[in-house]
Amino acid sequence: MKLVTYEVDRRRDIGVVSRDEMWVFPLKAFGMEYREMLEVVKGLSQSERDLLEHASGLDPDSSNIVGAAMMKEVTLLAPILTPDQDIICLGLNYMEHAEESARYKKEAFDGERNHAVYFSKRVNEAVAPYGDILSHSDIVDSLDYEAELAVIIGKDAKDVPLEKAEDYIFGYTIINDVSARNIQTAHKQWYFGKSLDGFTPMGPCILTANSISYPPELSIQSKVNGELRQDSNTGLMIFQIGHIISELSRGMTLKAGTIISTGTPKGVGMGFNPPAFLSAGDEVECIIEKIGSIKNRVK
Amino acid sequence: MKLVTYEVDRRRDIGVVSRDEMWVFPLKAFGMEYREMLEVVKGLSQSERDLLEHASGLDPDSSNIVGAAMMKEVTLLAPILTPDQDIICLGLNYMEHAEESARYKKEAFDGERNHAVYFSKRVNEAVAPYGDILSHSDIVDSLDYEAELAVIIGKDAKDVPLEKAEDYIFGYTIINDVSARNIQTAHKQWYFGKSLDGFTPMGPCILTANSISYPPELSIQSKVNGELRQDSNTGLMIFQIGHIISELSRGMTLKAGTIISTGTPKGVGMGFNPPAFLSAGDEVECIIEKIGSIKNRVK
Repeated sequence: MKLVTYEVDRRRDIGVVSRDEMWVFPLKAFGMEYREMLEVVKGLSQSERDLLEHASGLDPDSSNIVGAAMMKEVTLLAPILTPDQDIICLGLNYMEHAEESARYKKEAFDGERNHAVYFSKRVNEAVAPYGDILSHSDIVDSLDYEAELAVIIGKDAKDVPLEKAEDYIFGYTIINDVSARNIQTAHKQWYFGKSLDGFTPMGPCILTANSISYPPELSIQSKVNGELRQDSNTGLMIFQIGHIISELSRGMTLKAGTIISTGTPKGVGMGFNPPAFLSAGDEVECIIEKIGSIKNRVK
Repeated sequence: MKLVTYEVDRRRDIGVVSRDEMWVFPLKAFGMEYREMLEVVKGLSQSERDLLEHASGLDPDSSNIVGAAMMKEVTLLAPILTPDQDIICLGLNYMEHAEESARYKKEAFDGERNHAVYFSKRVNEAVAPYGDILSHSDIVDSLDYEAELAVIIGKDAKDVPLEKAEDYIFGYTIINDVSARNIQTAHKQWYFGKSLDGFTPMGPCILTANSISYPPELSIQSKVNGELRQDSNTGLMIFQIGHIISELSRGMTLKAGTIISTGTPKGVGMGFNPPAFLSAGDEVECIIEKIGSIKNRVK
């Protein structure tokens, strides 16, 4: 099922999307008083989950669901507006992207990737699925996009063996890991160039883990002004989700609510010759099969 | 004045330390009902601050301060146990440390440092001033210490000019930026090697910004098993606090409660030949003039 954070009639709510994607039903219609999505991620019980799965198949015309709203009449927000901690990101986690990245930085690339690259991205407030990316044109001359599958951890993960990693995943969403290449490169460590305000569009929903097979093998794409730029599959990650959760949690507790963005495939702006960076007015769409798409204009 | 988070009689409290450092007075003795230090950082009013400054000079034997406890009878905790977001850290921010670090990594060092290096450190729970560092000896073979001055931001900082940076500082504390060199190096980006559980001793207090001159020029030292290892001055930072706040806040809002650890001077374990890394049982002390010291045993 798909869970969303949305506004309707200037009220913010958490809801489940109907299976035909025509409706959103607020969780409180089913007696669940969660104030924000992170509470759902950390607290949803199995019986509540079952109830919501069932509810997502209901027809609001024949069932009386208090507060049901039509999807086209609500404004979607990032499912998790304010993450508890910085988002953990993977770098160079698809082979052809590792190659294009090395080419851009004029580094040698030997095709070997022995260790995952982890960094973090501060997100004071995630950008809505159709909200604006901020260009920061006073300090950024090479604004880039990165469509990524993000994993949301549902319970505290510590020393998780590979074969148990799946149990810790609450669900998935799409993140555009917007990057200022000039800042990322000048400051050596990538943190600052990834953490500017308005650099993290997220959404449109959280697809719960049980909705798809594991590990997820989903088509992932991005488009700039309608032109296809990235076109790959999440099954092609070099370090798969199980590896990531298992490796990090050996040493570093991943608390419930942790978001891990699993890296981007080939086709980002710096991969083109000449580079195809973003400018104000450009519209970037990131699409992942079964989750949906987010579309953000650069402001 | 010095603010502390402490436990006495199994109760956790926030307090102000008396000027003679013999006593701690709980903030609630003065009608201030803060539940945790981050609420103080974000919410302390000028009149409350004045009252606490005054109170820190009182003699509890002649004044009736409800809940006053002797410092030697309380257990200090990290002043901010659970930061709101990852801690922002500076790398290579003292010239001689940049040099020793390049030598360890067998990289060329040209003595030029044009851009600050920013990365982040996840802190699920900060280690108490006299608590244990976790060695993670199953995955870490090169455990290192880094004494650092940390700045605590008191109000949301956005587009802060250099000359206004001081206004955004609530206070200062000491952080030991414990690092797993093998993980830090293998994964290229430093995040994972810095973010293991039990890697962030902090304290012993928050020294409020008004207590010292700005920018702080304080002696900073570390000792391992009593042997002096680092011995420098915070005035020798390459990128000073004003620069850091100004640069980061241009693009990235630093929310109240943000912690920035300003980098470590020469003398860390990897700087010695052969390297002098930490082992279980070692005791590391980090000392900064006017703030105090934290002393942590490796477990």
